[in-house]
Amino acid sequence: MYNFDVERFKKMTAGALAQRENIEKCADEISKKGFKNIFFIGVGGSIAHMYPLQYILKTNSKIEAYAEIASEFMLMNHQHFGPDSVCIFTSRSGDTKETVAAAKFCKERGATTIGLVAKLGTPLANICDYVFDNFAEDDNLAESLYLQQFPLIFRLMHNNGEFPEYDRFIKELETMPELLLKAKESMEERARAFADHHKDTPYHILVGSGIMWGDTYNYAMCILEEMQWIRTKSIHAAEFFHGTLELVEEDTSVILLYTEDETRPLMDRVKNFVTKISKEVTIIDTKELELPTISKEFRKYMAIILMNTMLERISIHLERARNHPLTTRRYYRKMEY
Amino acid sequence: MYNFDVERFKKMTAGALAQRENIEKCADEISKKGFKNIFFIGVGGSIAHMYPLQYILKTNSKIEAYAEIASEFMLMNHQHFGPDSVCIFTSRSGDTKETVAAAKFCKERGATTIGLVAKLGTPLANICDYVFDNFAEDDNLAESLYLQQFPLIFRLMHNNGEFPEYDRFIKELETMPELLLKAKESMEERARAFADHHKDTPYHILVGSGIMWGDTYNYAMCILEEMQWIRTKSIHAAEFFHGTLELVEEDTSVILLYTEDETRPLMDRVKNFVTKISKEVTIIDTKELELPTISKEFRKYMAIILMNTMLERISIHLERARNHPLTTRRYYRKMEY
Repeated sequence: MYNFDVERFKKMTAGALAQRENIEKCADEISKKGFKNIFFIGVGGSIAHMYPLQYILKTNSKIEAYAEIASEFMLMNHQHFGPDSVCIFTSRSGDTKETVAAAKFCKERGATTIGLVAKLGTPLANICDYVFDNFAEDDNLAESLYLQQFPLIFRLMHNNGEFPEYDRFIKELETMPELLLKAKESMEERARAFADHHKDTPYHILVGSGIMWGDTYNYAMCILEEMQWIRTKSIHAAEFFHGTLELVEEDTSVILLYTEDETRPLMDRVKNFVTKISKEVTIIDTKELELPTISKEFRKYMAIILMNTMLERISIHLERARNHPLTTRRYYRKMEY
Repeated sequence: MYNFDVERFKKMTAGALAQRENIEKCADEISKKGFKNIFFIGVGGSIAHMYPLQYILKTNSKIEAYAEIASEFMLMNHQHFGPDSVCIFTSRSGDTKETVAAAKFCKERGATTIGLVAKLGTPLANICDYVFDNFAEDDNLAESLYLQQFPLIFRLMHNNGEFPEYDRFIKELETMPELLLKAKESMEERARAFADHHKDTPYHILVGSGIMWGDTYNYAMCILEEMQWIRTKSIHAAEFFHGTLELVEEDTSVILLYTEDETRPLMDRVKNFVTKISKEVTIIDTKELELPTISKEFRKYMAIILMNTMLERISIHLERARNHPLTTRRYYRKMEY
């Protein structure tokens, strides 16, 4: 695979999975102590990768879960937040200004704080009650986060009497490193062709739904906009027909990030429409992957990890084809604002 | 004002406010009976105009509130929904497919259903337990909805012991028709100039926060995209710095829909940044309006109604300047999908 370090990737997946027992211990302590609700708090990619967790809870659990953007959360005087809240933060750098401030805010008010970081000793790691670290970089961060957050969230549900399949789920989760590598490989040539074909495309519409919505929003904003300076519209499949559809013409690029969950028919509806109008429809669908170690009912969860790993191939080929490094920024962290 | 029927507008505001006593009766019955949570369910503009209500509840009340897209809600098996839920739907036409199906779904499962429609006798009106009708069209629908939904939501909070200022708030709400007309007038020349200047602008970034976020999302998708076929990115002010900022260049149009609520500093931060980079920043800010009958602490709520009425002036002038009727659709309700 182009510009890909297998060993580094394996180190990331192994490192994330190695946190499992500590994460379970944390979840068990929290469940034992009792809590009122969960707050997922982050900004940009970190909140985007928590929307799926909120969706999983809403559709599987009676646990109340809020997902709030860090700097808005700090101002809004959220009436459901309190000392009995469990607050989850992630920050690769460990020093994202808004996230660090929010973690401090929550801790000072007596809430339980959990931080996922790439490195210990960083401001976020120093604040939180529970900290899990695993080295990851922009190109494999999502996988690292989900491999750690799944044991946390599903264990909390399990402890709440809602996910009896927990042990089997974890056993299957532990087979993901190999499946992720295969998914990446399966994407390689498609990603190369996509990037070559679309190197001058100035605008993409990205559509997702259900568990996949957060990652759809993320790929549009944090990769295509931030790292490639390409204009995007990310739109939920259930909302697509209430405005954005009117923009689709024969040459409009529409990227469908298919979910394997119960909202899949919403994606089918968009697909049926856009393929009638546009010749530039790209479908990325984890359903095409063989996952021999994953039960049918767990595929929809694993799909968000697989999707991120497949999308990374598109990013790296866009970097090549467009001669635009993924790390170049005009403004982010380069000027005061 | 260009292409504006004052009498028709006055009829709409009077009609919406005339529903107040019936709406309060409904709220009082619901509070007396007791309920577990509120579900705002809609699609496109109708859900967008309910996000502010969810925000108001989150920041003022212990009442649990969910805002869900109708067709996703139907599929997701939401674990907090049940017979003790109060479900609120709006549909101007009264026959939006997804909304009608969701209302039927909720009613069949024993939940309390409330519908706001422009016309009785429509499918949504025929399904719901409580129905409030007021004639409105696309250009004044948001104002009609908020003038009816505010008494509903604030009364439920009041009944929950959380909004003792209710009576005063309603007295002030009843002065809104005149203030709305003045706000519209104050916008007229700016809207004309904006439309003339931007008639060929192919892409706008729209930024909002807090109470104003839903209407920001709405104006981008349901007006600029659907009615003018102009590409947009709507982005929350707290998220702007995590991707979208990289797209801003000297000639990039950025439209800031300022809130008057506690998240205003988030908008200031975006303003400080974008005005350094782009020469095409448009600020629409209700704070500039004199509202002699509105208390300072209620301005932030009234601001979303005022913003919609001001934005309508931009829409009508875009229609003129671009010679593109707001009612023309390529696909919506014109083909099967």
